[in-house]
Amino acid sequence: MKIPRSHPRYGSLVTRETLVAAWKAGIVVPEGLIAHGRGEAFDYLLGEETSAPALVAEKAAAAFLVRAKSPVISVNGNVAALAATEVVRLARAIPDKLEVNLFHRPPARVHRIAGVLRKARAKEVLGLRPDARLPGLASKPAFAQRAGIYGADVVLVPLEDGDSTEALVRMGKVAISVDLNPLSRTSRTATVPVVDELTRAIPNIEKFVRELLEDAKEAARIARTYDRAGNLKATYSFLNWRLRNLLRGPKKKR
Amino acid sequence: MKIPRSHPRYGSLVTRETLVAAWKAGIVVPEGLIAHGRGEAFDYLLGEETSAPALVAEKAAAAFLVRAKSPVISVNGNVAALAATEVVRLARAIPDKLEVNLFHRPPARVHRIAGVLRKARAKEVLGLRPDARLPGLASKPAFAQRAGIYGADVVLVPLEDGDSTEALVRMGKVAISVDLNPLSRTSRTATVPVVDELTRAIPNIEKFVRELLEDAKEAARIARTYDRAGNLKATYSFLNWRLRNLLRGPKKKR
Repeated sequence: MKIPRSHPRYGSLVTRETLVAAWKAGIVVPEGLIAHGRGEAFDYLLGEETSAPALVAEKAAAAFLVRAKSPVISVNGNVAALAATEVVRLARAIPDKLEVNLFHRPPARVHRIAGVLRKARAKEVLGLRPDARLPGLASKPAFAQRAGIYGADVVLVPLEDGDSTEALVRMGKVAISVDLNPLSRTSRTATVPVVDELTRAIPNIEKFVRELLEDAKEAARIARTYDRAGNLKATYSFLNWRLRNLLRGPKKKR
Repeated sequence: MKIPRSHPRYGSLVTRETLVAAWKAGIVVPEGLIAHGRGEAFDYLLGEETSAPALVAEKAAAAFLVRAKSPVISVNGNVAALAATEVVRLARAIPDKLEVNLFHRPPARVHRIAGVLRKARAKEVLGLRPDARLPGLASKPAFAQRAGIYGADVVLVPLEDGDSTEALVRMGKVAISVDLNPLSRTSRTATVPVVDELTRAIPNIEKFVRELLEDAKEAARIARTYDRAGNLKATYSFLNWRLRNLLRGPKKKR
């Protein structure tokens, strides 16, 4: 099907097609499609652009990544489908490891996702030989690699669920989430919750990483002064303001 | 996978599993999974129960259905997967026709959905031999049956997109939508937008249908006095109030 460029939801429809194609290719699972829909709804409410509080969180994320001893970016099917190029660019900038980290983990799927990352010019992709189990996940077994997420001090977990994010935080790691729902368990649990759309958030973080790599003092200051609770509060205020405006004047379609 | 009953999102997870199973059975399409995710996000924001304005819209929907000359319920993959029993019960109460109405319409899929409805004890299912085309749909060909949606005066279109709802309204039909997003083009376009979750909305409408079948005068009064704009406004106020509360005090998970 050809989506007409004039369609009022052209951008959303194209992204949906990308995800459905990735599902057909065995990259994305059906649960990932449902999760994408939830994100879409929140992105719509947030105005489909990076908010001021999101930008603050993205800069903090960059500071933690730059200062990390052993940073890792976790990549699942949706992330590979929507932002392989962006995460690989970010990983190369830090430099940082990439680990395929899946809930639904048949080996063929892990290999396909690793393939997508390599095609996007990733140097090294972990996750193919998990050798450790994350503790404290009742509902599912979660495996990771000692050289990767398991041993990392800072983990970027875009589009991750609440259970996994919570497990990482409980292990004492700095978990940076990217999740459009500011009320999700993921956003409420992460050390640095970034409430923004993935393909906007990752390049923003990369830009800040490049800046902060040049200025270690500034990176230290940002990591030290980052106010998680204040930032979430600002995000809630922003969403509230957006909604007041949206709900005041929705135009009736004729 | 066994979802533990104690999981904070148990209900949502079970519904997701139902949809994924229906997708495996060829009932639901990937786009339907994404749409479900959007609905889930709004249901969460609305508090996952029927709001007072939704109840008013559901009663109005019942009044229009009871008073219709030729009412039809449109059924797509998500509706069949989530609420086959509920729509069949509603159809029998009115009585009303059921028509399988799909965007992605390979004959095998139409037959499978008709099968789901028949298994839920539907008497007659239309949509297998569409013989008319709905006018004004640029982005897709939309077919319907003259004896069904095409010739109906009142159409219940649960979980339908904005384009199709708009086409029905332009044809002069009373279109009753069920859509959790009060700001969607569907909700903004429908004659009677019901902003509620499907498996709550349909039984509510059925209950009101049974009441109004006994009281034609009351049905006439409700259809006459239904205030679409006022009802949508009340829905927006409700959502706004819910959000203010949600955003004021999200508890931090430890």
